[in-house]
Amino acid sequence: MKNKLYFDIILREKSRMAFEATQKEQESVGYYSLPEQDVSSILEYCRNISSDVEDIAVIGIGGSSLGAKAIYEFLKPVENLSRTLHFFESTDPINIKNILDSINVDKTHFLVISKSGTTVETFSIYKYILSKHDKSDSYTFITDPGSDLEKYAKHINASVLHLPKHVGGRFSVLSVVGLVPLALCGVDIKALLQGADNIKASYFKNGYLQEILLKKSLFYAKNHAKYHINCLFAYSESLKYFCEWYVQLWGESLGKKQRHSAFNVGLTPIGLIGPKDQHSFLQLIMEGTRDKSVTFIKIDDFQEDLCIIPDITLPHLESLDTLNNLPFSTLINMQCDSVIEALKEENIPLDSITLPKMDAENIGSLIYYYELLTSLVGQLIDVNTYDQPGVEAAKIILKKKLAL
Amino acid sequence: MKNKLYFDIILREKSRMAFEATQKEQESVGYYSLPEQDVSSILEYCRNISSDVEDIAVIGIGGSSLGAKAIYEFLKPVENLSRTLHFFESTDPINIKNILDSINVDKTHFLVISKSGTTVETFSIYKYILSKHDKSDSYTFITDPGSDLEKYAKHINASVLHLPKHVGGRFSVLSVVGLVPLALCGVDIKALLQGADNIKASYFKNGYLQEILLKKSLFYAKNHAKYHINCLFAYSESLKYFCEWYVQLWGESLGKKQRHSAFNVGLTPIGLIGPKDQHSFLQLIMEGTRDKSVTFIKIDDFQEDLCIIPDITLPHLESLDTLNNLPFSTLINMQCDSVIEALKEENIPLDSITLPKMDAENIGSLIYYYELLTSLVGQLIDVNTYDQPGVEAAKIILKKKLAL
Repeated sequence: MKNKLYFDIILREKSRMAFEATQKEQESVGYYSLPEQDVSSILEYCRNISSDVEDIAVIGIGGSSLGAKAIYEFLKPVENLSRTLHFFESTDPINIKNILDSINVDKTHFLVISKSGTTVETFSIYKYILSKHDKSDSYTFITDPGSDLEKYAKHINASVLHLPKHVGGRFSVLSVVGLVPLALCGVDIKALLQGADNIKASYFKNGYLQEILLKKSLFYAKNHAKYHINCLFAYSESLKYFCEWYVQLWGESLGKKQRHSAFNVGLTPIGLIGPKDQHSFLQLIMEGTRDKSVTFIKIDDFQEDLCIIPDITLPHLESLDTLNNLPFSTLINMQCDSVIEALKEENIPLDSITLPKMDAENIGSLIYYYELLTSLVGQLIDVNTYDQPGVEAAKIILKKKLAL
Repeated sequence: MKNKLYFDIILREKSRMAFEATQKEQESVGYYSLPEQDVSSILEYCRNISSDVEDIAVIGIGGSSLGAKAIYEFLKPVENLSRTLHFFESTDPINIKNILDSINVDKTHFLVISKSGTTVETFSIYKYILSKHDKSDSYTFITDPGSDLEKYAKHINASVLHLPKHVGGRFSVLSVVGLVPLALCGVDIKALLQGADNIKASYFKNGYLQEILLKKSLFYAKNHAKYHINCLFAYSESLKYFCEWYVQLWGESLGKKQRHSAFNVGLTPIGLIGPKDQHSFLQLIMEGTRDKSVTFIKIDDFQEDLCIIPDITLPHLESLDTLNNLPFSTLINMQCDSVIEALKEENIPLDSITLPKMDAENIGSLIYYYELLTSLVGQLIDVNTYDQPGVEAAKIILKKKLAL
């Protein structure tokens, strides 16, 4: 993975402190150590799932689904995965019915994922599916040790897996929460963790990403009142769900009351897909209020060498002949470069990330890169990156409504 | 369709002027008159497409695809549509290959949609598909009258349909651009236009929406420097692509240099889906910078009455029994109401739109409502709502790169 910044900023004392804070956080924040975890028990668990199982269905929402979905959707088109992964993540009845219609319940293993063990969406859906398919060995529960959900699972003799300590939902994709569904579908989870570990090493062991991440986070933090919207513009349809994961990670981690001032701050994440969103959101970036930074993501090698624009001349449309013989993978990256150049002219803060190819290692790197960046920015804008007190109010109101 | 504002604002002279401007725009801006168009020629065209055709594939990007996709994806789960609709809207080679693999080219009719007739994405893909399937009667071209694309289409004896005059891409969904692909799939396009016409009548003929739209647009315009991010929070998975259509309409229409000051202004659109994004973006709305307004969309009747949470007690999880016997459609709307209440407590500017049910008439209403709102806000913040000069720079750079 390459990352090029199109802006510069001088690192000072504040950055050294932020770096030290992330070093120190490794003792108390669980996600940092996920890259070096031993996955043998996960692989052992997966081997015990019957080979008759053709579909894996995650029943979970937010941090319990977005990460696995991001990785699965990135790899699905290019890897020969062994099972299909589905996500029940909405109480929309039409959505529930649609997904149920698309799977054979008797050949599906369900992963019920809830950190707290009492998520309303997850258990509404679980009860509904249970009423149609009441076999304990078709379910695995992933939750915090000692939760009531664990007690329930033991009561019905179903499998339980534990979340590691001090790993919040949106930072949990490289734990059992993401690794179990992905491994069950044949994703190389060791390569995934290796990709994450490469970024971790580069950052903590003074590799080239240390300076990059410190500069980028300092720029975002220093200018957070001006450039408070951060666009992730990915030139690959396969990164669509990665963008959704990023939106949760960024928005829920950084949209907070400041620790020392209690002032409301926040960086607003926006996920975009190129070239499609050149025909949608680009106008706003170019000519709208100058409150946005943009990070481009490019794929070096799409592994689709034979998808080439043929050498055809269309009468009256000869001007389009400049496209002939061009591989689509070259065209899409030229489109990305053209937008970068156009935005550079406008002095909009930019950087670009290039993934060499589409595989588990690279998406693991991208995930960990964003987790580190989020931790750094959170530190610098003085928020608690790992909590989400703002979502409680609506939950309490719903509970009251339900109790009536 | 109901629309309830949770804020109030006193209408003054400025609103009367904006209303008169929209009245006057009807003479020069084509989308206003689309609801009353005669669709008999479109229906006649559709009858001439062979009944052997099973799939319809739109080759188009931005305004040429987003609208039809929004409506199709909204109706697909609840209506018995006669054909499947696909969208080639990316130069991502993996995406192109995926869609091609999912259709039988010999039983597909392709709609090549390009207003200008020279869109790079559209013609790269068209050439590629043409090299695999070279039968003129499998293609229909939709473009401006007299374009080079029309000349080409006539040269190969393929069908051509014309965009109506003065209808920009992002306002074109209720023209042939959206109506043809939708009608080919069996969508009731008359009902769609009827829904739009209901909104038009309510607005222009002093119905209840006139005051609502004038108040809402005035609030957005007056506070555009403070509440410059507008979130559309739809409690229905089926509105996901409607959100994408809204993002283009809003962002590309309102992100501009002001007409009289040349100052960069813009309202940033964000599409959210509930309840999923309660576990993602909500924290940022609740506790982040107070720069967001939120519009909720609810569906009154999901037409899925039998999707009910069963009356099951889970040992150790008895607290979840409050969910029992609740239809999912009730639960999802209770979730929406809970978030509205929580945000009201925080004095965040809100409104809610309720669609009685999921059908063509209602989505037609929603589309036209947003088009009118966009026109009004554009008028009030002093931008040209209908152009998009900011996207040209990247196109010119790409053309230079291609010519090398």
